[in-house]
This record gives sequence, structure tokens and C-alpha cells, in this order.
Amino acid sequence: MNNISLAAMGSYTVGGRPLVVEGQASRKFSFSAGYAAQWDPNGHYWTDHAYVQYFVPVYQRFLTPVVFVHGGGLTGTCWEMTPDGREGWLQRFLRAGISVHVVDNVERGRAGYGVFGEVAAEQPIVRSDEEAWWLYRFGLAAGYAERNVFDGQQFPVENMEELARMNVPRRASAVQLQHAALREIVGRLGRCVLVGHSQGGGFVLETACARPGEVAGCVVLEPHGAFEDLQVANCARMPVLALMGDFIELSQTWLDLDRRTRETVERFNAAGASAQYRCLPDQGIRGNSHMLMMDRNSDQIADVVIDWLDRNVSAGAFR
Amino acid sequence: MNNISLAAMGSYTVGGRPLVVEGQASRKFSFSAGYAAQWDPNGHYWTDHAYVQYFVPVYQRFLTPVVFVHGGGLTGTCWEMTPDGREGWLQRFLRAGISVHVVDNVERGRAGYGVFGEVAAEQPIVRSDEEAWWLYRFGLAAGYAERNVFDGQQFPVENMEELARMNVPRRASAVQLQHAALREIVGRLGRCVLVGHSQGGGFVLETACARPGEVAGCVVLEPHGAFEDLQVANCARMPVLALMGDFIELSQTWLDLDRRTRETVERFNAAGASAQYRCLPDQGIRGNSHMLMMDRNSDQIADVVIDWLDRNVSAGAFR
Repeated sequence: MNNISLAAMGSYTVGGRPLVVEGQASRKFSFSAGYAAQWDPNGHYWTDHAYVQYFVPVYQRFLTPVVFVHGGGLTGTCWEMTPDGREGWLQRFLRAGISVHVVDNVERGRAGYGVFGEVAAEQPIVRSDEEAWWLYRFGLAAGYAERNVFDGQQFPVENMEELARMNVPRRASAVQLQHAALREIVGRLGRCVLVGHSQGGGFVLETACARPGEVAGCVVLEPHGAFEDLQVANCARMPVLALMGDFIELSQTWLDLDRRTRETVERFNAAGASAQYRCLPDQGIRGNSHMLMMDRNSDQIADVVIDWLDRNVSAGAFR
Repeated sequence: MNNISLAAMGSYTVGGRPLVVEGQASRKFSFSAGYAAQWDPNGHYWTDHAYVQYFVPVYQRFLTPVVFVHGGGLTGTCWEMTPDGREGWLQRFLRAGISVHVVDNVERGRAGYGVFGEVAAEQPIVRSDEEAWWLYRFGLAAGYAERNVFDGQQFPVENMEELARMNVPRRASAVQLQHAALREIVGRLGRCVLVGHSQGGGFVLETACARPGEVAGCVVLEPHGAFEDLQVANCARMPVLALMGDFIELSQTWLDLDRRTRETVERFNAAGASAQYRCLPDQGIRGNSHMLMMDRNSDQIADVVIDWLDRNVSAGAFR
């Protein structure tokens, strides 16, 4: 395997706001080691920003950077490791010569989470293995206990614990802040490609519509979100690739999400965009769960996306 | 500047435990976009693990990997960017040919945080700019509003907002879990060097004492913690470097911490270790705050550590 040669790597934060806390009482806290102290919560803070880690290869296949946007309840780690210990899409894209910016959105991962205000007051939720099992289409809900997967399932369910350790808490009320942070990332980068998974797929489309002309293309992996609110007219000529995995027909939830995805692709095309809907099994790629980028054939799916970028972003009208 | 050529990069998780939640009521939640759903908290989870991101250069200066352990209220980001936008120690060490493992400890950053149980029930605390100002020795507490820094201060206080965005909440009761995770990292890596900042410095010494013979060396940057509990007898012959910055004498807090650090170095030496205490101003390196790895001369301090590693880990008895 070739090396990953980077000209630059690092991270930055975007968005959020300064916060001044006043008039609150001090609070005692204590480390288990026995060290006790007072915490004075009053003062200046920054809150509601996103964190972005970036990697710029020496050899660049094309100049447009790609932004990876994780789904609900996950962080940027979903792109850098698979549960069975293989390299993720991050390394695959870097080895292919593509600059990658990996987002930990507001209230997620290294962005930290607020301890003051309205969002912070919401009790966070987190995804159980049982919910992941059926929602990610590993198998029927009833098959969780026995690990009965769908025939030909590509997700490495024997390593589900590793997936469980990628799950982090989330607060639903942070969604608008997350949208705002993504718009700022595009504002900072200028022309870029957005790749979003699941809830991140919906975010990506909304971001592209909110920053007309700046987003060079969107790849949405089994997206969901409030598609009906999208200002698709802002994205005339923008290339969009929507990918769906296997076993859709075995889940009413996914039949609905798939239909909404197809309708959204049609709306983009009606507005003059160049949007493609691809159901992977129709292309002969079978067995994919919702976690396409972690499935055993994750490299193959990555290459589908890279090939699409070559044809639609690098060589296309948008370069 | 030379490129960063990596043979491998990725991440893994360590420690923690499976968690089964039972008998809890479902809860309604709703994304701002109007999507409402029920959350069933019952099920299987994993909690209390740490996250580690690693980078392995093609050219390796020495085979022993270095583990970076952040301080209290921070994450691994403290090693990969400086507030004034320069590269951090992570890139400096990689360019020097050193494998680096960057920890987000339990309840911090990409490790996520618990939403069930005792630790989760604790209200998190977070550091204000005002506290950072005096605790990190940028200036006297009274000088915060006017940004009156100590003469020759190396921390880029004009970019304090960037530091504020690296601060994340923490729960003091997670300390024992954080210790446990670090011990597991050493168990996974085998021989390694631990580099810890602030609270992470204390963690690093405790980890080395808990895994005798496995830790090839410790670098502690302005450490604090429960040093009196350290089983230093376990670390005979282990090299230790303790670094302290400038302006110590202007803060009673730091005079105390400095004294405790010197006493701890002496205890290690009395037990047969090879521990060095270095106050940077005594070596002609002036103006450093508590945030050594972010100060304007962060490259210079990194090179002090790399030079020490060359002499004590690479070529020394512990190679």
C-alpha cells in the first residue's frame, strides 16, 4: 500500500459565539484523588462551535477539498476506522490524493458540548445497540439477540462493540447550530465538496442550498432530514450523488427514507442540478448496511464516490 | 518544510465497559426541523472508554511510540494546533520521525461522555477565560480585562478565543476511569513513552508506576496530581523529564506545584530512576506559560523534548 504523504495537517474551529456567564454561585468539585476545589462558573467562554481536522496530501488528485460530515450520534471517527480494524474512508481518500476536512459538529466530539444555556439544558440521548441493529439494517429487530443478520450483510456485526464505542450523546436542539457551523466551513474553504452520511447527508444538501455557487458537489450517503425545506433553486448545475445500500425493502423506515431521497434528487434535477440517485444493489454492489463507510466493502464504495468525483467535480463543469 | 509521510494513521478505543440499561421510560425528543421521535433508553451500550488517534511516520527516528496525554478540560486538539495558527507538537514530532498516539481521555472529546450512571450524574465544569488567564500564567488575575501580560509572555493572548474553543467540559469523578484507560493504552502498545501536560502529567507518572517496566520514559509538562500516592519504587531506571515554564515565582499556586514537582523528581531518583527537573528559564528559554505546547516558541520546547528522547529513550538503557 502506498504511503500517505501530507503537505499539511491540523485542525481549526468554526462558528459558535462568545458567552458571558454572570451572577452564578460557585460550586465545589473534587477529583477522586482527594483534591477539592471551588469552581466559579462566572466569566467568558466560547460555545456552539464545530471542530474540523484536515489533511492535505502532497499529490493532489484535484484541488477541491472534500468535507466529511458525520451522521447523528457519531463524530468524525466514523470516517477513520472500521469496526473490524481496517482503514476508513479518510485514509482511502488521502491515499487517492484528495484533501479531506473531517467535521466534529457542534456538541459532538472534540467540539465539546455546552454547559450553559438552552441546548445544554436538554438531556442528551444516545443510540443503543438494539436501535443501531434495526435502524442500520444489520437485521430485523427480532434478530438482535441471536445476531441473525440479513443474508449477505456486509457490516462486521461481530465487532459491534467497536461501533458502540463510536456512538456519542447528542442533543436534538443543536441541529440549527450544526447547520450554521457547516455554512461557516464552506465560507472558510470556498469551493469544496460536501460528503454527508445519514443526518449529515441532509445537512450537506441544506448547506449547499444556503451557499449557492460555493459548493462544488454533494455526496449524500443514505441521507435524511427536512428535504422539503431545501431551496433547490439555488443549486442549478450542482452535481449531487445520492447512494443507498441494500435491504431497503425490508424496512418501512428505509422505504420511506429511500422514497424521500429519490424525490429530492428529482427536485434538484428539475431545478437544473445534475443529481444522481444510485441504489448500490442495482449496480451489483450487495449487502450494504446504513454504515456504508464501515462495511466490509467500504473501500469499494469509497472508490464509487472517488470515481464520481473524478467525473463530476474534477473534470466536470464545476472545476 | 519537509512533508509528513505516514505509513499508517487511524484511531482506536481502549477501556471502558459494556452497560445495560433496563426499566427506564421512553422519552420524546425533537429536532428543531420539526422531526419528533421517541427515544427508548433501554438497551446495550459501551461507556467510559478513551479514544486514541495515531500516526506512524514512514521514516521512524526510533521505534518507541509516544503517547500525548492532554490536561484537565482539554482534548487531544491541544497538540495539533496553536491559537495563532501554527502547527502543534503532533506535526512537529511526526516531521521528526516519531510515531504519536494522541489521547482523548474518558468523558473527553471523541471518547464521548456517559449519559447513564454516577459519572454522568455529575454536573460538568468548564474553564473560563478568566481562570485560564491566571492559572495558565498569562498575567496576574487583575490584568485579564486589559490583557496585561507578564513581560516577555510567549502565549499568543491575542488569540485567546481559539484557546477558549479548545476547552471542553469535564467531570472530576471521571479521574479514576481516565487512569484506567491510560493503563490499557500502555497494555496495548507495550513499550512507549508517555508525554503528559498538567493533569495529564500526573496521570502519566501514575500510569508508569502502575505498569512497571513497560513505560520507556515519561515527559511531564508542568504536571499536577496526587504525587504522594505514586509507587515510584516500580520505576527504577525509568527516565523522566519534568519541564516547568516561566513566571512560576509570580504565583503561589505554581510555587507550590513547582515544589511538588521537584520533590517528586527527587523521589523517583531516590528509587533509582533517572529523573530530570528542568525549569526552562534556567536553560535560557524564557516567557513560557502553562500552555508550553501552544506558546510562540512551542517548536523550541518540542525540540527540547525530542532531544531528550534521543538521548534517554532512543540511545539510552531503555531502548
